[in-house]
Amino acid sequence: MASIFTKIINGEIPCYKVSEDENYFAFLDINPVSKGHVLVIPKIEDDYIFNYEPEYYAGLWKFAQKIAIAQKKAISCKRIGVAVIGLEVPHAHIHLVPLHKEGDLDFSASNKMTLPKEEMEEIARVIREQL
Amino acid sequence: MASIFTKIINGEIPCYKVSEDENYFAFLDINPVSKGHVLVIPKIEDDYIFNYEPEYYAGLWKFAQKIAIAQKKAISCKRIGVAVIGLEVPHAHIHLVPLHKEGDLDFSASNKMTLPKEEMEEIARVIREQL
Repeated sequence: MASIFTKIINGEIPCYKVSEDENYFAFLDINPVSKGHVLVIPKIEDDYIFNYEPEYYAGLWKFAQKIAIAQKKAISCKRIGVAVIGLEVPHAHIHLVPLHKEGDLDFSASNKMTLPKEEMEEIARVIREQL
Repeated sequence: MASIFTKIINGEIPCYKVSEDENYFAFLDINPVSKGHVLVIPKIEDDYIFNYEPEYYAGLWKFAQKIAIAQKKAISCKRIGVAVIGLEVPHAHIHLVPLHKEGDLDFSASNKMTLPKEEMEEIARVIREQL
């Protein structure tokens, strides 16, 4: 069965899309730990990031670099933090999280937020503008 | 002034070394959040990972992939998690952290440990053996 992320890539589940190319896809995390929190995913489904063939895997990180540079321009923050945990959704994904202080890379449930649709659309738009 | 990590690369400060090539270096985090927690760093000093030229940056991630694959073989865990925070030491570094459950990627002070020298040496040795 296709992962929830494959369904997002295929447009079967809606998302706040940030960018896409032939191999990779970026969209807003629906429960951000910080405003502007983006997920970057490979279009090929595998549940563990280190399983990918090195060139495809390196391409994913290069794609993430472009997104992070745009995020940093679009969102007021000190820098963009990175996390790959991968024990939730069985489709490898990189978290790119705008950081304001050290403790901001915190994925505990109490640190996750839900923002209004209009604000999510606006955040995705300002990041896209910087790409 | 050279960063503490550049001093480690140059051998001016001791470390539990895991691997090294021309461009990158890997060693045990001295205060691991999980046993087998490795830091991967570029030999060129810059305080922000997304500042690096894309090919050099992609090479860092490829180097990290090799380390993570060896770590997973050497350390009993579900998978290797990834984090880049970078608000502490002003020299870009990737945390590779053996994960047992979702909450393990936790860099709060209370989650950091100090292990005896002999155990650190043994951990570095078993990871090196898998490279």
